[in-house]
Amino acid sequence: MINNKLPKIWYGGDYNPEQWDPETWKEDERMFKLAGIDVATINVFSWAMLQPDEVTYDFSALDATMDRLYKSGVYVCLATSTAAHPAWMAKKYPDVTRVDAQGRKRRFGGRHNSCPNSPTYRKYAALMAGKLAERYKDHPGLLVWHVSNEYGGYCYCDNCAKAFRVWLKERYGTMDRLNHAWNTRFWGHTFYDWDEVVPPNELSEEWDGNRTNFQGISLDYRRFQSDSLLDAYKLEYEEIKKYTPDIPVTTNMMGLYPELDYFKWAEYLDVISWDNYPALDTPVSYTAMTHDLMRGLKSGQPFMLMEQTPSQQNWQAYNSLKRPGVMRLWSYQAVAHGADTVMFFQLRRSIGACEKYHGAVIEHVGHEHTRVFRECAELGQELHVLSDKLLNARAHAKVAILFDWENRWAVGLSSGPSVALDYVKEVHKYYDALFEMNIEVDMAGVNEDLSKYDIVIAPVMYMVKEDFAEKIEDYVAAGGTFVTTFFSGIVNENDLVTLGGYPGELRPLLGIWAEEIDALFQDQHNQIVMKQTWGELQGEYECGLLCDLIHSEGAKVLAEYGSDFYQGMPVLTVNKYGKGKAYYVASSPEAAFLKGFLANLCAEKGIEPLLNAPAGIETTRRVNDGVSYLFLLNHNASDVEVDLGNKETVDLLTTESVSGRIVVPGRGVRILEQR
Amino acid sequence: MINNKLPKIWYGGDYNPEQWDPETWKEDERMFKLAGIDVATINVFSWAMLQPDEVTYDFSALDATMDRLYKSGVYVCLATSTAAHPAWMAKKYPDVTRVDAQGRKRRFGGRHNSCPNSPTYRKYAALMAGKLAERYKDHPGLLVWHVSNEYGGYCYCDNCAKAFRVWLKERYGTMDRLNHAWNTRFWGHTFYDWDEVVPPNELSEEWDGNRTNFQGISLDYRRFQSDSLLDAYKLEYEEIKKYTPDIPVTTNMMGLYPELDYFKWAEYLDVISWDNYPALDTPVSYTAMTHDLMRGLKSGQPFMLMEQTPSQQNWQAYNSLKRPGVMRLWSYQAVAHGADTVMFFQLRRSIGACEKYHGAVIEHVGHEHTRVFRECAELGQELHVLSDKLLNARAHAKVAILFDWENRWAVGLSSGPSVALDYVKEVHKYYDALFEMNIEVDMAGVNEDLSKYDIVIAPVMYMVKEDFAEKIEDYVAAGGTFVTTFFSGIVNENDLVTLGGYPGELRPLLGIWAEEIDALFQDQHNQIVMKQTWGELQGEYECGLLCDLIHSEGAKVLAEYGSDFYQGMPVLTVNKYGKGKAYYVASSPEAAFLKGFLANLCAEKGIEPLLNAPAGIETTRRVNDGVSYLFLLNHNASDVEVDLGNKETVDLLTTESVSGRIVVPGRGVRILEQR
Amino acid sequence: MINNKLPKIWYGGDYNPEQWDPETWKEDERMFKLAGIDVATINVFSWAMLQPDEVTYDFSALDATMDRLYKSGVYVCLATSTAAHPAWMAKKYPDVTRVDAQGRKRRFGGRHNSCPNSPTYRKYAALMAGKLAERYKDHPGLLVWHVSNEYGGYCYCDNCAKAFRVWLKERYGTMDRLNHAWNTRFWGHTFYDWDEVVPPNELSEEWDGNRTNFQGISLDYRRFQSDSLLDAYKLEYEEIKKYTPDIPVTTNMMGLYPELDYFKWAEYLDVISWDNYPALDTPVSYTAMTHDLMRGLKSGQPFMLMEQTPSQQNWQAYNSLKRPGVMRLWSYQAVAHGADTVMFFQLRRSIGACEKYHGAVIEHVGHEHTRVFRECAELGQELHVLSDKLLNARAHAKVAILFDWENRWAVGLSSGPSVALDYVKEVHKYYDALFEMNIEVDMAGVNEDLSKYDIVIAPVMYMVKEDFAEKIEDYVAAGGTFVTTFFSGIVNENDLVTLGGYPGELRPLLGIWAEEIDALFQDQHNQIVMKQTWGELQGEYECGLLCDLIHSEGAKVLAEYGSDFYQGMPVLTVNKYGKGKAYYVASSPEAAFLKGFLANLCAEKGIEPLLNAPAGIETTRRVNDGVSYLFLLNHNASDVEVDLGNKETVDLLTTESVSGRIVVPGRGVRILEQR
Repeated sequence: MINNKLPKIWYGGDYNPEQWDPETWKEDERMFKLAGIDVATINVFSWAMLQPDEVTYDFSALDATMDRLYKSGVYVCLATSTAAHPAWMAKKYPDVTRVDAQGRKRRFGGRHNSCPNSPTYRKYAALMAGKLAERYKDHPGLLVWHVSNEYGGYCYCDNCAKAFRVWLKERYGTMDRLNHAWNTRFWGHTFYDWDEVVPPNELSEEWDGNRTNFQGISLDYRRFQSDSLLDAYKLEYEEIKKYTPDIPVTTNMMGLYPELDYFKWAEYLDVISWDNYPALDTPVSYTAMTHDLMRGLKSGQPFMLMEQTPSQQNWQAYNSLKRPGVMRLWSYQAVAHGADTVMFFQLRRSIGACEKYHGAVIEHVGHEHTRVFRECAELGQELHVLSDKLLNARAHAKVAILFDWENRWAVGLSSGPSVALDYVKEVHKYYDALFEMNIEVDMAGVNEDLSKYDIVIAPVMYMVKEDFAEKIEDYVAAGGTFVTTFFSGIVNENDLVTLGGYPGELRPLLGIWAEEIDALFQDQHNQIVMKQTWGELQGEYECGLLCDLIHSEGAKVLAEYGSDFYQGMPVLTVNKYGKGKAYYVASSPEAAFLKGFLANLCAEKGIEPLLNAPAGIETTRRVNDGVSYLFLLNHNASDVEVDLGNKETVDLLTTESVSGRIVVPGRGVRILEQR
Repeated sequence: MINNKLPKIWYGGDYNPEQWDPETWKEDERMFKLAGIDVATINVFSWAMLQPDEVTYDFSALDATMDRLYKSGVYVCLATSTAAHPAWMAKKYPDVTRVDAQGRKRRFGGRHNSCPNSPTYRKYAALMAGKLAERYKDHPGLLVWHVSNEYGGYCYCDNCAKAFRVWLKERYGTMDRLNHAWNTRFWGHTFYDWDEVVPPNELSEEWDGNRTNFQGISLDYRRFQSDSLLDAYKLEYEEIKKYTPDIPVTTNMMGLYPELDYFKWAEYLDVISWDNYPALDTPVSYTAMTHDLMRGLKSGQPFMLMEQTPSQQNWQAYNSLKRPGVMRLWSYQAVAHGADTVMFFQLRRSIGACEKYHGAVIEHVGHEHTRVFRECAELGQELHVLSDKLLNARAHAKVAILFDWENRWAVGLSSGPSVALDYVKEVHKYYDALFEMNIEVDMAGVNEDLSKYDIVIAPVMYMVKEDFAEKIEDYVAAGGTFVTTFFSGIVNENDLVTLGGYPGELRPLLGIWAEEIDALFQDQHNQIVMKQTWGELQGEYECGLLCDLIHSEGAKVLAEYGSDFYQGMPVLTVNKYGKGKAYYVASSPEAAFLKGFLANLCAEKGIEPLLNAPAGIETTRRVNDGVSYLFLLNHNASDVEVDLGNKETVDLLTTESVSGRIVVPGRGVRILEQR
Repeated sequence: MINNKLPKIWYGGDYNPEQWDPETWKEDERMFKLAGIDVATINVFSWAMLQPDEVTYDFSALDATMDRLYKSGVYVCLATSTAAHPAWMAKKYPDVTRVDAQGRKRRFGGRHNSCPNSPTYRKYAALMAGKLAERYKDHPGLLVWHVSNEYGGYCYCDNCAKAFRVWLKERYGTMDRLNHAWNTRFWGHTFYDWDEVVPPNELSEEWDGNRTNFQGISLDYRRFQSDSLLDAYKLEYEEIKKYTPDIPVTTNMMGLYPELDYFKWAEYLDVISWDNYPALDTPVSYTAMTHDLMRGLKSGQPFMLMEQTPSQQNWQAYNSLKRPGVMRLWSYQAVAHGADTVMFFQLRRSIGACEKYHGAVIEHVGHEHTRVFRECAELGQELHVLSDKLLNARAHAKVAILFDWENRWAVGLSSGPSVALDYVKEVHKYYDALFEMNIEVDMAGVNEDLSKYDIVIAPVMYMVKEDFAEKIEDYVAAGGTFVTTFFSGIVNENDLVTLGGYPGELRPLLGIWAEEIDALFQDQHNQIVMKQTWGELQGEYECGLLCDLIHSEGAKVLAEYGSDFYQGMPVLTVNKYGKGKAYYVASSPEAAFLKGFLANLCAEKGIEPLLNAPAGIETTRRVNDGVSYLFLLNHNASDVEVDLGNKETVDLLTTESVSGRIVVPGRGVRILEQR
């Protein structure tokens, strides 16, 4: 449990009383009660209010809010307010603002605007966190700390340049090792002194966001900036822990946000929290995958759904309303994948600036007689009914898909073989195939203990970091099934190619050699021709994007290319290795192939779907002390009948006993307890 | 009459003799005569010539030009030359160049390049205007002053920052009021000192041209820059008026140019003038609307067509030739909508730099034996025939469409609900429906006296400024018909949402409440289902873009949505209010609906089309001392027959009596006098 | 012969031993032998290695490489290493880095990164070239010098501004002449002092790469930057020549690279070399045209194919593998068009940074058992068989197409009439028609001696430079056939329009006057209607892009427009002039028209195709001392039969006698010697 002061699924969200008057606060209290809201995230953007100038601190308004909320039964997720520096600070200490990727020094504006290596920012952010912790450490309403907000963005200023050199010195020790890691003999880039290194932006090595001349430099700069922001987080974390060692600390993540290595960050968060903003046309399996990834950051520990919108967003191109029932459905989807909170941005809609058309529990009309508020209030009641039943319940997947931010950076920075290669998209293809079959999946980091899994899938494992190949070999030798794909095993963690033939360090395990890599135009395809029927797999399937031209070096060939000059070369192989098997998929296949292929692997391992359900029914399971909770989520607009078979279950929301053929209403949810 | 020295429709255009030699001047005189040209706009870009260094002024060439033109029968529209500063000034006083939206300090180059808050620019521009006015105040050829040229572009330099703070201080008085107006508690933006405010560009709050974090700041900066340029204009205006209080002063506007609030500017222009540059594929109704808007800037006062091309442009992607007859047709279109001049850019084509492929009366070949020159000369003769007949004649529309630049800015800056929302496009949809029916329309500002109209239409009246709601209520109470649409009444003039339910201050008048606003993808649609047949309106019509989910609070529901979860909710309502009616159109409809809808409203008010004419025939009317001039413009390539009924008219160009069925030739024009 | 030390087609390519260890060097030697490699381009990016700080030079590694290669039978193309400055230099002397088109001062990064007017760069680059020449002047392995690498990119720094003013002073002498050349009376741009001139970039006159306010300024800046880089090249050239006057010096060009006037550069190269990087979908006739252009730079002198990839590239969007046989086919295509070398980038694939996925003779796997290596080795053997047979053999085309970089700049910078106008595309249309018919073509500069040609084609000869019109008149008067097109003869070399009617100075020769120029939308077309059948030309053909509205002034009209208001006006004319004929094509025609048209012209002149061959067969001829070498290149994937008729030939690769009907294998090549 995140904090046992409130032993239920927390319900609430971002709340900015400083934008409103006391009369409105009273209405807020009344409506929070109506909606069953019991937690408010406050103080997210209040730095300028709390510290109106360099020497003055004024906590009176925050004191009052804390007390007022607590009295009305609302607990607090307390933010540290450092996500946007005050205007006076930008004016007085320009080092707090960033230099952007275009090389421009920024002035005051926006949010998430502080340079993480700014001495001013670091000093005053830490000071603020400490003061808040000291002041509110004993406040009975305090549930959890929320450091800053949605960390992100890179800076390229001179302070960052200096800090980068220190970071490099720590990483490499000598110029020789630096030069080797970056292969600086290429294009005569040899550095003879740390001071010669400059940040890689549009003034030096990069262009168009992720195009670079030197992958090694750009990769290290991403690591360094992720670390710099993490370090700024840790400064606040440590200040807080001095005063409240037992209150959990988090910062809200953003799912598949590219710029930060969340697996590295996760070590320093007591609980993961994240902000979930799918669009109307985001595949539901994509949202599911992201939830699983957030759960995977701390090896399965439940997480907080820190933000979602009750209805619409403002920053998308077309800000569709969430259709009736969808807010509830997607809230339970979060819980189904491991969330122990359901929280919104935001509780009351602001009246000015860029988020005023973002949905809120209390809309501009101000009263409770709206569709959105009614749906929120109904969900609030249900969460009271659920009480503490689901808290801390865990998933027990036997299949893991590996995900690695550093690999993602390296793939994204690569010059060649194809601009269409998108690591996340390839990972999602595998996830989606399993999702469609209602097979439980963990999204795991490369440092995860893999022994708990029967199948481990690592799509486009381009970068193979130190000891990883050995770890996978051990896993397979012990009986595991491993799957990887084209463009894997190519480089080490500095993006230096492993010589001797692709897939490099993975070559012995996979029993193949990839001689060449063909890049196909978007409308070009090849075929996966099965050598013989295997489960549901037979005949031909389409593939494209990249085609590795592989040779078996011991692996069994299961399918071959169907056309072009490499017709007849292997496209799907399996290699026995110790007690296990290692599969190689040499191109990017169509969905039908992946479904059949992964179904076969699961069948081999005796992994069963949670439920054989019609399309659009998502099924997950959370388990707590031997009690199992089955979630049935109907993403269709119309009712669907599913067959529970002889499972005897209790519907948690209706408390009825349920078995056999049951109905899940259109956009509806059922949570079935099974003992 | 603009200036009764020349009591006819002025004919001529931009002329740059300083680019040519005396021999060419003689040819110019000869050809101007052949073409019937009697006005030349000169001195537009001569600052560097008139003032070769900081202390020297040399008007000798201009003196000679003024005299020479006058002697040859050509009057002068005299520009002040300040639209591009001299190179020496940019070098000596870098404050004259701008800082752009990307935050870059500009160097010498281009035109319209001066910072309006540059002390150097302001000093020397005003000085130049004064010197010119003093020198030429008694010149018999001087018809009208042309200050600078096509004002536009914003600056973000430190001088602008300082001036912005002064402007803000005048507008808001205190930091508290500023902070409230901008809702700066959002994202911790509270300002404690005026000096903390910086211009909102890509270094601070904005990106991609009109994306912003703070609508309030960005909106005020647009107001401020429009005011700054206006102030620069006024400096020159006042210098001129010291010497020639009776000679009208103008500056050439650019129709729907986004950056300046032309309604505010219009107060300081003695006569409106503008530059009309439709492309081959610009809808003729769009040009018509723009003419009407320019006429509306000074409540119907005739305007100058200051520039148009005789044939092709140079700055479009594909610079099509104007087809034979089109230059004449579009010239008369301007007159039909209120122009009392027909002027070109330019009289002689330049030989170098970026406008050398822009059409001119005298082309590079240099003689009169060209299609373009022949067409120009024929039109010149016709304008002599027309003499002073049409001068100062006025339109008498009973329908007004409101247009507001500040509303346009606010809609454009909005983050959500849809990037596809385009204020001008929505306004044009309504205009086009009336245009197709040959219903006379005024394009009016929000400060216009509305009592003269039977119907007032305000599409997407998102921003409701002080006293506007009351004004509209009074108008409707007195019997007027008012139409507004989705996304209206949302904010006040600081872009702060009016709480209590959309459409805010317009809610009592309209008798509805808009609970939610759905944004549709570009290929997504809903339907307007008529509850019963109303005139030509029956059955279903398509709608899209945004769909307000409205509830009637007294309004009668005329049509409902046809699909989605808000099927059956009102999409078209009418509310009786006093003696009048207020309509609300909750989505963006297809053209067929708008035509039927507006036809019904006109029928209710007894407003008749000027003529029931086939497609492609545009009809307008100008009235002078009880004499009415009917313009028939055939935008088709082939002849069209129209029926005047029993109107007895005289064709002004042929002087024949005309009635009954008559032919308007393909791309031809008839101007019929009716007493 | 480039250097008779190695009297055969050189075979090898870029080699970077400094990126590898001694063990690898040994493998390189072994594999070079296997592949028949006899030349290595070294030291391209070694500046930082050779000069680790300002005062230290260390040639020991280079010494060793030179010796080692020579001992193993590999000659050296020795680069001067100045294509990328060392990091220490950028730090110590920031003047070496550029200011870019956006006005941003660059920091260390990338390559081709030195300002050509940087005193530091000029000093140390020249010093390095001299030191290398002095050191290796007598090395037996040294074949040819390779100065810097792929010169390109413009700089806009203050040193360039200063140098630009000096350049202008030399070109124009007085401010008056400068102002006239740039037509600065337009937009009041008159300059009174050289110091007022600033480089035309996004801070002053330009935007979007090649959009400009002042064509004259932008054109001169392109000339100036091309000259500045050429001057930097010449500094090194002269240092080298001091020590090795007899060893040829080159720098590798990039075919149709836009930024440098290669015809001007060619004067200072002893031998032309270039880097050929077609994509999978580049038309083979486009590559052929580029080879011919490179050959034309020095009036037909054989050139070096300095770089091509053995398999794939890395910097394209989709880096397809070269299909089996294609590397060989395209290598021989280069030789067929005049190359006396076949060289690759690169011999061994690098392991880090942005080119590691670029193909190489030795791939990452490191051994010779790859498809790519096998193909390379086979070609290496063939080149040994060919020995010195083809060296220095020349083409003997009777048709020339003129190409001019300054004209290309001017067309590209033009504002109007159409953004779709692309000089290179129009040139290629004419080339392609001749290519399809296997007519030999020279791509010639405007200064070429034209007397050797029967037909000279100058598509879109927009800019007519001094004496050019007279030269063409003389050529035609003497019996030549000249073809030009729409948008020709418009301006002089300063982009100032020639007054008096288009096509300006070409008007007497062509016997026509172009009154207007219509620009068509991309989907708009007109027709070329033949007035009577002419050879294969009859009936109607499509045309578009631009349509000149021309009048005959003596020329015979061969075809007329088929539609629009200029239907019936001439679109194809011929004018007899002296003993020759001048054709004018007034619009951009479809391919079928051009093929028929050019076939007629060739027939008139008795110019025969080299061979009547099926589609996809490319045929060229090189002649040496009366011996003729016919190249048959089959770009089809399947075998094709061609008929040599009664030619008696010897196949150089098989040494068999060959005549009559023979087969060219799919993607195969035959080289037939004919005495």
